[in-house]
Amino acid sequence: MSAEPLRIGLLGHGTVGAAFATLLDERAPEIERFNGRTPKVTGVLTRSRGSFEEVLANADLVVELMGGLEPAREYLLAAMRAGKDIVSANKQLLSQHGEELFELARECGVLLRFEAAVAGAVPVVRLLEESLAATPIERIHGIVNGTTNFILTEMARGLSYAQALSEAQQKGFAEADPSDDVSGRDAAAKMAILARLAFGSPVHLDDVPYEGIEHLQSDDLEYAREFGLGLKLIGTAERREGGLSVRVHPAFLYAGHPLSSISGPFNAVTVESETITEITMSGPGAGGRQTASAVLGDVVSVMTGGARPPAPPLPLPLIGDVESAFYLHMDVVDRPSVLAAVTAVLGERGVSIKSILQRGLGESARLVMVTHPVLESSLRDAIERVGEFEFVRSTPRTIRVIEEEFV
Amino acid sequence: MSAEPLRIGLLGHGTVGAAFATLLDERAPEIERFNGRTPKVTGVLTRSRGSFEEVLANADLVVELMGGLEPAREYLLAAMRAGKDIVSANKQLLSQHGEELFELARECGVLLRFEAAVAGAVPVVRLLEESLAATPIERIHGIVNGTTNFILTEMARGLSYAQALSEAQQKGFAEADPSDDVSGRDAAAKMAILARLAFGSPVHLDDVPYEGIEHLQSDDLEYAREFGLGLKLIGTAERREGGLSVRVHPAFLYAGHPLSSISGPFNAVTVESETITEITMSGPGAGGRQTASAVLGDVVSVMTGGARPPAPPLPLPLIGDVESAFYLHMDVVDRPSVLAAVTAVLGERGVSIKSILQRGLGESARLVMVTHPVLESSLRDAIERVGEFEFVRSTPRTIRVIEEEFV
Repeated sequence: MSAEPLRIGLLGHGTVGAAFATLLDERAPEIERFNGRTPKVTGVLTRSRGSFEEVLANADLVVELMGGLEPAREYLLAAMRAGKDIVSANKQLLSQHGEELFELARECGVLLRFEAAVAGAVPVVRLLEESLAATPIERIHGIVNGTTNFILTEMARGLSYAQALSEAQQKGFAEADPSDDVSGRDAAAKMAILARLAFGSPVHLDDVPYEGIEHLQSDDLEYAREFGLGLKLIGTAERREGGLSVRVHPAFLYAGHPLSSISGPFNAVTVESETITEITMSGPGAGGRQTASAVLGDVVSVMTGGARPPAPPLPLPLIGDVESAFYLHMDVVDRPSVLAAVTAVLGERGVSIKSILQRGLGESARLVMVTHPVLESSLRDAIERVGEFEFVRSTPRTIRVIEEEFV
Repeated sequence: MSAEPLRIGLLGHGTVGAAFATLLDERAPEIERFNGRTPKVTGVLTRSRGSFEEVLANADLVVELMGGLEPAREYLLAAMRAGKDIVSANKQLLSQHGEELFELARECGVLLRFEAAVAGAVPVVRLLEESLAATPIERIHGIVNGTTNFILTEMARGLSYAQALSEAQQKGFAEADPSDDVSGRDAAAKMAILARLAFGSPVHLDDVPYEGIEHLQSDDLEYAREFGLGLKLIGTAERREGGLSVRVHPAFLYAGHPLSSISGPFNAVTVESETITEITMSGPGAGGRQTASAVLGDVVSVMTGGARPPAPPLPLPLIGDVESAFYLHMDVVDRPSVLAAVTAVLGERGVSIKSILQRGLGESARLVMVTHPVLESSLRDAIERVGEFEFVRSTPRTIRVIEEEFV
């Protein structure tokens, strides 16, 4: 005699929703074997079919895979008020209305799981919420967008941005309108969620400055290789001077960095803390079946009475202007005095040079440098002054560099 | 008004035990903030001080960090019978008496957590027990011994085995008697535990054939580099022909393998499954504070009512003779007919060559090859025959090669 099934109301039946329903069917016997109870989809709501009220009335647990803010938000609030546990993969919603959802979940005493909202099948939400719940985290670096990581991997092989994007679209790694991915906005939403979990401070998507990869040039990748650097779109969340900095931008990594070897449409997250040194997790960042697997993991977590919703927030001030090392790229007239003039202006503004490479190209020359860490505002100020020299032929380009800080 | 503290009885107060007590003190306020309850060590048993009965009587949870089989086993069985939850870091005990402990935990309805028994701070136990509980796993590859990974990293830089071992000992990465690590036995215990969690089949340490790194030669690493291969001590647990193969041995990895970039005293585990493609986790494999952090994560997991003990086992047959690709290294007399004779014998026994490298050294020559996958028994048989040729100057050396199977 087995227990009553766990009744699942499924909101959304697109790629992930359909993959979830299939995977659930396949794995239900095994889940029953170790949980004594079988999960079962008892209602489905799609854009064209089903009634939310009916789905809700027949569910113990609501799985939300519809995406977007509304009506997803309204449905989840109603479901929690009705005492239902929630599993969601909705990064937009969690990065913009997370506190409202967490608060109601605590109030109603329901579970709210969202592993699939960040980094697909890579269980980084659980890592932060559970394994590292007692660990004082100092920094997270993440490659949390597979589309851009695929494009950058192809650009490192010599393709232009446009060629790499087109290849990503052909292979199904980028959408017809890729702007949410290539602008860095998708990664910013995920970093907002991770920052909330790691640091307990409420972080809204709007709090996360992001810069995308559309403006990157293949020759930046080539020069960087000469410095031993590889280029990734990196999300960062870290403690800085009593506050918190959360941001997304392209960044060069030294070869020893655990994220530097992550290629193709993969995701990876490195968590740093004095107590654990660093832990890195990597895996596929998307794909219907992979994401469905994370959703099903959350369903099992609810069945075993997994972790409660995040505790009430402890806000930390958000720090906007942080120190980074920078890669600088300038087209200049090839004249003897140029290097001296540029380094003098940089030096006056506290920008100290770590490595430099000058290459003559007939009339013009390329000046490529990597700086020591400097406040972003000071760097921008210095670059603006450098740009005013008549011998500088185009706007200098800057890309952040993540210094190697690992064993 | 806060709830009663969670009373912890601590068995063992060595490096990890002391680090755990310190870390617990540091983190108790934060744990109370999100759990509403504070964990507190209410009794300590060491080799020279304390009474087990007293520690037990004053504890809700027993944390066992003493190691070894007895009296740890006896204490944990008694604690579970008294209704106490258990956190343990004892890989010897779990790999040799796991089923007895799991069965009693299920019977007594207590929790039994052991994240720190495998891969230090890297939460691979939780990955398998919880995140991937609903995922049909096909294979695990792990670097689960930091001492040997450090030694191999140094050997790849040109040191001999003896030099690298001595350096590991100086840096505190290897013990005065390193035999448990360098023989592969420590890794075998950890793979037995991971195999049980991933495949549900009981695997005893004695079921895991292991081969260590003591016999490796620096020039094997050099030749392998010419084939684009790096050398690691790899634990494998995988489904094979309706059964299970669990083993530990040195193995060459292609550069694209997610474990090939793991250097120094780190641990990493890759889990492969059709539904998730692959997930890799890496981090420090040892260190008192890192291991203590995993133990404290388990304590928090018990406080939030984390996952139940593993379900009753479903035994799978253990497969001993499995197919692998092999690297072969032979010292031969430098004569024209040698290569033809060797490849003929290999071919007769079904050993097919993928790459070959012959290098003359005056009187003698080195013959280095990588084979296509072949049953280990066939390879051993072929090698024995090759060794009988008078032109073979020393016993041929063989090392397994893990083929690249990733995107």
